[in-house]
Amino acid sequence: MKNILQKILFASFLLASPFAQAQTDEDVEKVADIFETSLTKSSAYEWLRYLCKNIGHRLGGSPAYTAAANYTAQMLDTLGADTVWLQPLKVPYWNRGQVAKVRIVNSQTIGNQDLSCIALGFSGATPRLGITAEIVEVKSIAELEKLGNKVKNKIVFFNRPMDATKVSTFYAYGGAVDQRSSGPRLAAEFGAIACVVRSMTLKQDDVPHSGMTVFNNVKPIPALALGYQSADLLAELLAQEPNLRLNVQTDCSTSPEQTAYNVIADIRGSERPNEIIVVGGHLDSWDIGEGAHDDGAGCVQAMDVLNLFKRLGIRPRRTIRCVLFANEENGMYGATTYAEYAKNNKKEIHYAALESDAGGHSPRGFSMDAVPDAQKNAFAKVQKWREILVPYGLYDLQAGSSAADVGKLRELGTILFGLKPDSQRYFDFHHAKTDIFENVNKRELELGAGAMAAMVYLIDKYGF
Amino acid sequence: MKNILQKILFASFLLASPFAQAQTDEDVEKVADIFETSLTKSSAYEWLRYLCKNIGHRLGGSPAYTAAANYTAQMLDTLGADTVWLQPLKVPYWNRGQVAKVRIVNSQTIGNQDLSCIALGFSGATPRLGITAEIVEVKSIAELEKLGNKVKNKIVFFNRPMDATKVSTFYAYGGAVDQRSSGPRLAAEFGAIACVVRSMTLKQDDVPHSGMTVFNNVKPIPALALGYQSADLLAELLAQEPNLRLNVQTDCSTSPEQTAYNVIADIRGSERPNEIIVVGGHLDSWDIGEGAHDDGAGCVQAMDVLNLFKRLGIRPRRTIRCVLFANEENGMYGATTYAEYAKNNKKEIHYAALESDAGGHSPRGFSMDAVPDAQKNAFAKVQKWREILVPYGLYDLQAGSSAADVGKLRELGTILFGLKPDSQRYFDFHHAKTDIFENVNKRELELGAGAMAAMVYLIDKYGF
Repeated sequence: MKNILQKILFASFLLASPFAQAQTDEDVEKVADIFETSLTKSSAYEWLRYLCKNIGHRLGGSPAYTAAANYTAQMLDTLGADTVWLQPLKVPYWNRGQVAKVRIVNSQTIGNQDLSCIALGFSGATPRLGITAEIVEVKSIAELEKLGNKVKNKIVFFNRPMDATKVSTFYAYGGAVDQRSSGPRLAAEFGAIACVVRSMTLKQDDVPHSGMTVFNNVKPIPALALGYQSADLLAELLAQEPNLRLNVQTDCSTSPEQTAYNVIADIRGSERPNEIIVVGGHLDSWDIGEGAHDDGAGCVQAMDVLNLFKRLGIRPRRTIRCVLFANEENGMYGATTYAEYAKNNKKEIHYAALESDAGGHSPRGFSMDAVPDAQKNAFAKVQKWREILVPYGLYDLQAGSSAADVGKLRELGTILFGLKPDSQRYFDFHHAKTDIFENVNKRELELGAGAMAAMVYLIDKYGF
Repeated sequence: MKNILQKILFASFLLASPFAQAQTDEDVEKVADIFETSLTKSSAYEWLRYLCKNIGHRLGGSPAYTAAANYTAQMLDTLGADTVWLQPLKVPYWNRGQVAKVRIVNSQTIGNQDLSCIALGFSGATPRLGITAEIVEVKSIAELEKLGNKVKNKIVFFNRPMDATKVSTFYAYGGAVDQRSSGPRLAAEFGAIACVVRSMTLKQDDVPHSGMTVFNNVKPIPALALGYQSADLLAELLAQEPNLRLNVQTDCSTSPEQTAYNVIADIRGSERPNEIIVVGGHLDSWDIGEGAHDDGAGCVQAMDVLNLFKRLGIRPRRTIRCVLFANEENGMYGATTYAEYAKNNKKEIHYAALESDAGGHSPRGFSMDAVPDAQKNAFAKVQKWREILVPYGLYDLQAGSSAADVGKLRELGTILFGLKPDSQRYFDFHHAKTDIFENVNKRELELGAGAMAAMVYLIDKYGF
């Protein structure tokens, strides 16, 4: 009798305590299996090599993007996903063209000098010989707004660097990127005829970093990013020669809409197949470099979650769905299309969604987000898995945000996760020609895949 | 009365609780100041550039080592250390020579084939045309011992890879390095005439990694490391052609002892100047690459602790001493000499010692060590500073080990700390020609310096 009572008490303790549940030896062992397999038998690195070296950069809607969609779909099929399909959507299409030039004209100090530059996505073009005008340097949108029409017929130079004192470079990026994303449009509204923006990077080299700028209904003006050192040089010269002029040339253009595809693959759940756990990244990249960290790494990590489940024979209770989103870089139409599909698919519940879109560096944890009603005990529950995850360097489990594409599922009540890799090097490569395969470390990439798989395993097993 | 009682109670609570003490706003702000300054005004990166690019690799006892000692002493003087001196010592000196060659001879499959190789430190030389012999592949010292004299007149090939399933690559290294450090000596004792060892790396390229091998009183035989891919190739061929032969050539040699120097600089303590907190790294490197991660990074981080204290006007209670150790790589004579000095200097107590010798990557915490009698509450006390340190990524504070040079102070009862950077990339570069300045990220390096300075600040303020 006493024994039975003890068993009942123990069982009720287990039921009442998700912590105790999650701390079983089985979980510790399974998570160890996941990481050991990711570090020795993962396909992520070779998939990434193919994406980077055989396909290369892949702007949403480009032929290379279609090749990447077909390749990843084939790999997902080969690894044993139950279903694989391509979800088509229309995406805007912008061409970089052949010319991007920012030249200091006739400086009293240095004469003519070309600066390191690259056109921003959706920049307008210049006439063939470019636009030559004086420069107005500003450090913020507010400063531009204060100047107002004084920038008319001038070139606005946004020159506020990312704040190096932020330990997370994503905060530094978030604190500066308004200059790139909104600056050119506002400058155009005040009559500026072109715009140059200090690159969003903390690396003190001269590699320019592209990225999207948004004109909405305003007629695009030419908008280019300058390398870090070029921005420094221009600012120094302007301090001495306020009437300095720039010549800006670019022949970029906009094409008709193109078709791109979300790549979607499921391992069907054994008990609750209608409850979906999404793992994703975005398959498109900017049209330079190889889209290695942004976001080839996230895609192959998401694919590898399915791969690791298959290799280890883990049969999930819920459906694990890999979604490789189209067109994150220039409009998020892939994520929007998928979220619309999820909303309209009344038979499915989007239980959780994890994305890796912060680079292929050593993982340190996950950020989490959900609408307040959906959160309930979810975040607290995740904290209780912390002990299992810390041996793999995953100590940082904080609510606050997730990632761009899965963020579109927030309103469905989905619990969202963004993988948090070490951020120090990400903006060295982000949207630049240096975002290539060689700058991704195999083990760091694999640990990220393991982190995603381990979190999916725990979510699937215990729920929130 | 009630108020006074409350104040007394609160004060006694503060006295009783080191946790409450350490959680003052002042500490949080000071640590924030330290990291902000390290990320914006540190000299570490420029010092490292000079060490790597103007001086280059610096084997203990070489002219380059002396140049590095003079340069770092000058920098420590310039930053405002109260005392700077060079502590001379004698070090053994080994010359790599001009030739290092491992050739597969007359394979039935591929004919002759040179393998990627590098001599191990203290390798013996071969005759001018080398040594040609059959190969005995072993995976462990135990396997060699079992074979015993069967390896006589043969070349022993140690081929156990580092274990990729270890999340910390230092554990993977620790589990394989006996092959390099002891293998050649044991092979020589059993009559082997040369030795080749798979490089201690997890990177699947073909860059060979050097490092010390210890012959003690045994006559050195030629001992070379093979690149990862070369080791794979050799193992594959041997499986098909067990009688395969290698030709090994190297003209390395041993010189008379040379003089090297520990570089020692103090900021004198204001209250307890005889209590010493050492911060260090080792200034010597292997004679290839630039000694950037191993251990230029650790040296400039240790120097930067003094620099950050000076720049922030933090007057330490105890003496903060930067020690750049000579000759870690080939005998630890610098650490031994310093420990002897510390032991004999009866006026000084070596209160704590921190070393950075695990690469210049993003810091994740500290490992700690001390003789049992000395530990008392020290490790528990450090845990209580964790909340202040976690925002800078320093979550991993575990007892167990420290670092090689400061380890020699253990018997003095010193509390020892080793900085723990992310370990994934370290053995990509370790003891190889790829350990160059370009492979060190400025911010990662600076965060490590900040981590060292923050820990020194807390130790100095609160003690153990």
